[in-house]
This record gives sequence, C-alpha cells and structure tokens, in this order.
Amino acid sequence: MTEPLTEPTLLLTGRWDRGERDDWHRALAERLPEARWVLDAPATPEEAGRIDVAIVANPAPAVLRGLPRLRLVQSLWAGVEKLLADDSVPAGLPIARMVDPAMNAAMAETALWAVLMLHRGFHRYAQAQREGLWAPHPQRRADEVRVAVLGLGQMGRTAALRLRAQGYDVTGWGATPRLADPDGLACTSGPQALGPLLARSEIVVNLLPLTPATRGLIDARFLAALPRGAAVVNLARGAHLVEADLLAALASGQLGHAVLDVFATEPLPAGHAFWSHPGVTLLPHAAAMTDLRSAADVAVANVRAALAGQPVRHRVDRARGY
Amino acid sequence: MTEPLTEPTLLLTGRWDRGERDDWHRALAERLPEARWVLDAPATPEEAGRIDVAIVANPAPAVLRGLPRLRLVQSLWAGVEKLLADDSVPAGLPIARMVDPAMNAAMAETALWAVLMLHRGFHRYAQAQREGLWAPHPQRRADEVRVAVLGLGQMGRTAALRLRAQGYDVTGWGATPRLADPDGLACTSGPQALGPLLARSEIVVNLLPLTPATRGLIDARFLAALPRGAAVVNLARGAHLVEADLLAALASGQLGHAVLDVFATEPLPAGHAFWSHPGVTLLPHAAAMTDLRSAADVAVANVRAALAGQPVRHRVDRARGY
Repeated sequence: MTEPLTEPTLLLTGRWDRGERDDWHRALAERLPEARWVLDAPATPEEAGRIDVAIVANPAPAVLRGLPRLRLVQSLWAGVEKLLADDSVPAGLPIARMVDPAMNAAMAETALWAVLMLHRGFHRYAQAQREGLWAPHPQRRADEVRVAVLGLGQMGRTAALRLRAQGYDVTGWGATPRLADPDGLACTSGPQALGPLLARSEIVVNLLPLTPATRGLIDARFLAALPRGAAVVNLARGAHLVEADLLAALASGQLGHAVLDVFATEPLPAGHAFWSHPGVTLLPHAAAMTDLRSAADVAVANVRAALAGQPVRHRVDRARGY
Repeated sequence: MTEPLTEPTLLLTGRWDRGERDDWHRALAERLPEARWVLDAPATPEEAGRIDVAIVANPAPAVLRGLPRLRLVQSLWAGVEKLLADDSVPAGLPIARMVDPAMNAAMAETALWAVLMLHRGFHRYAQAQREGLWAPHPQRRADEVRVAVLGLGQMGRTAALRLRAQGYDVTGWGATPRLADPDGLACTSGPQALGPLLARSEIVVNLLPLTPATRGLIDARFLAALPRGAAVVNLARGAHLVEADLLAALASGQLGHAVLDVFATEPLPAGHAFWSHPGVTLLPHAAAMTDLRSAADVAVANVRAALAGQPVRHRVDRARGY
C-alpha cells in the first residue's frame, strides 16, 4: 500500500459545455479540498506529469495519452464504450464506470413509467384525446403482463425489482450466465435463452451495456421472436437497435409500440421518421441523467481509494467490455 | 343467526349494456350455483317478493323499492353516492360498497403513472416530440417531490404506499381525523390541515369519496393554495372539481398541469375545453375499472354472509356518506 498523496492533481475533462464542466468542478472540488485541478487538458508537459487521476465525461480522443503518473480514469458516465474504443488510453490503466444510485433510480422510474403506459394503454388514451374520442379499453392486471428486462447490472436490476414490486411478471436476462439471483428475480442468460424469453414477453426493456455482443441485438430477428403487438423500451444505447428493422416491425404490426430514449445519431436528426411516428414515444436521451451530487460522492470515493493505493469500485473489465 | 337460505333469489340490476350485464351474471352465477336470478327488475309482485339480495351497478331509481325480503344491496361500484341520494332505497337497508383489490391496484398504477409523468416531465417530452424538439430538461430525485394523496380509503392508501415505495415525499390527507397510520404513512386530516398541506405539495392526487363535504373541494381557493405550477390528478369523481376554476388556474399559470379521469358530464362532451387543452391529460374514466373476477369473488362473499345472517364487509355508513 502506497502513502496517500497530500496534494493530488486531478484532471477533469469531457465533451460538455462550460457550465456543465464548472458545475462538476465545483461539486468535486468541494469534496476534495486538498486537490489541485487541471481542467480540459494539461497546458504543459510538466502539468501532464503531475496528473494522478482523470475524471472524465466522454473525453476527447488522445487527451489521456502521455500522463505518466495517471493511476485511475474515473468516468462520470455509466456507458464507457467510447473510452474502451479509444486506443490512446493506455491498456493497463484502471477505468471505473459511474454507478450512481440516483441515476439507477431515475432509470428505474423511466422503465416503470414506460411499462405502466404500455400495460394500461395510456399512450392510446393520449391519441384518443387528440382525436376527441372517449374510448375506454379493457384493463388487465399487472400479473398478466410479462415483462423482460435485458441487462442485469445495477440499472437493469433496480428496474426489474421495481417492476416486480408493482406485480408484473418480470424475467431478467443477462448476456453472461449467472448463479441464482440474490433477490430471487426470475432470470435467464446467454444467447440460447433469449429467443424463448422474447417469445413470452409482451414488453421488453433494454438496459444492456453496449458491447460487441449486444450491438445491433434488437434487429429484425429479435423483433420477429416477440409475440405480435409487443412493445420495446430502449433505454440503453442507440446502437443496440437497428432502426430500419424497428420501423419495418412497426409498419407490419409485429411491433405494437416503441419507447426510445437513445438513437444511432443524437440529437435525433430533424425529419427522422421517429419524430412523427404514432408508434414511437421518443425521449431526448433523458431516461436517466447522472445526479451531480450523488455521482460526485461516488467519484470522490473512488479517487480517494486510488490515491491511497486501494482497490476502486465498478472497475471496467476490458475483455467483457463494461 | 338465521339459517342460510338453500335457494336464494338474487336481483342483478344496473345501467349498463346487455353484454356487460351478461358477463357479470355469468361470473356471479358460477360462484353461486344455488341461486335463482332476477335480471334488471322483477316482472311480477311475486318475483319481487322472493328477492333476498340485490347486486347493483348504478341502478335505475326506484328499482329497489317494494322488495320486502331484501336484506343487502351489494354495489359492484366503489362509489355509491347516487345510491345514497336515491330516496327510494329503504333507509335501514344495509348497502355494501365494492372494495376490489384488483381495482385498488389499477388505481394505484394510474396514480403512479401520473406522478412519474409529472415528476419527470414525460408529458413535456411528448409535446416536444410533436414539435420536433430535442430538449432534455433537468431531473430531480423522487425524494425532492412532495405529493399529497387526498383520501385514505383502500384506494388512496394503496396509491400512497406505492408512491412512497418509489421514494416520493408523500403525505396522506383524510377528511376525518384518524389515529397514527398503521403503515407509518405521514398523514394529516380535517379541513384545517388541508391548506398547509396544499401549500407544500407540488402534486395532489385526489382519491376522496364524493360526499357533501368533498363536493366542489378542488375550487379556486384550493388551487390558489398550491405552490405556483403545481399539478392536480383527479381520479375520484368529476364533482370534486370545479372545472371553470381549474381552467382559470391553468390559464394563469398557477396550475401547471392536470390529469383528469372524471368529469362533471361523462362522456366528456365534444367541444369541451379539456379535449384540446395542452395542460390537461385526459382519461375516459378508465383510471381503474372493476375487475370482474376479483369483484365477483368479493360480492359473492358478502352475499353469502348476508344470506347466513352474518355481518357484511365494506358496509356504507349513511351519515358519513360512503
């Protein structure tokens, strides 16, 4: 174990606007009063040579190159696929994802709102209101609605448990096999189990990490495996979904509705078919934002651990891809 | 205690369409195979003289007059204000409301969906989608959102507890004083406590029974007591709310949004201002429907109790009005 540093130097860098960067800087500096800060990028090789930890939000390529003292990259984002794809990030350097309890809760809220809407048909009532139609439709019990939650990380797990608490018939799915679920959540895993799970699920919520194995997962074959009229809720990454296949499945009636928070190109370009599609409920990548206060707490705890030579939490496994 | 009747005669009557009546008749007859049934109204005084129990859904006035053996009126509806206002219903006759666990759950789902929508601004994203705008707005934690649930009967209680489980800062309010809440729900009661509660509540969910004391409760004074930009969710009865006052509060910006399931006149008349109001999310009295299966179980349990001379559940207190 090495000695804690008395005056560590931290790099805060990302692609964000000035106000957002300053908000983070303030929240982090309050919690780490002993730190010296380098914002955006080191100005000189001497400054680069002093940086102990980098706190990043979707950083520019190569900004993490040439930092000899760097011992941790702490992401302020949960998704780190761009960071892992950047080959200027030294291979042996520990990277930690953000796992923010407030963000998990926000994601679970969005998942719950979307499932309640789809189950109870509140989106159909919104359409009926616009058309001036008074048209109550039959009501089903939550335990009659089968929901699949793809992804059993912190976000998927939180969402699945809250859905189960509302009475839904929830099954979780993870890409990799796992032992019995600690919360007794019904789970399956692995590519073989996905088809049968989709075949029984009328609502699918995607909260998977984006990896080479999950990129493009929600394609024509995936959508064809669902029961006719099912719904997809994509809250993870735009690249999980093949947009043309989704539009085709909506057009044929195979897919009943989609709730989409993430897109191949963001912001979603003007004129994109999703904007005005009656079968699409669109959110502007707002399903869950990092909460500055709790995320700063999480980041600072990891920074302190790294500076003290102790293990960090939520370290990325590069082979697994998240 | 009287002997159970071996071949009771039951009247099933309401203002509904033929198909709905037949569905109820089937569900009830399955559960009471020994019963003889009179549908809609007795055809002769002899038939009227045999009726032991009436199972009703918003029955026509005077249909319950002149039934000398009648010992229970079991409503299939939770709201019984019309039945109590009908002076042709004999004064001493026990009336039982429907308390259907599946309906309570459905009501709590609607309340939760509405609060999630208002808290996270999903209705604003729907508007932005129609306008082609990509406009994420800031996100708050559920524990920063103060929700008042008016009405602490089965429905209000179920909704309040589910909202609390999602992390909301929930306070329940009942018209009549009560002892400490059995579930530790924060509660206030009585007319004096309502103003201070409204002043701190940014979302108010109404699940009160309709009584002389609660009719017209949501009026200009009520709405002015809320913090500016607050939201009202009316899931109880249209007559709880003064529609003109609500429209004025929306127009002034005092009220930010309303989710309305019930109206002074239903179906809501064509051309009513609510249909196209951007500040109103409208449901066609569909927040919670009785579930035929569980409600038939509840009704039949009460019918059997009444036929056996035992106490019935959810008996209406005429003085209290519900």
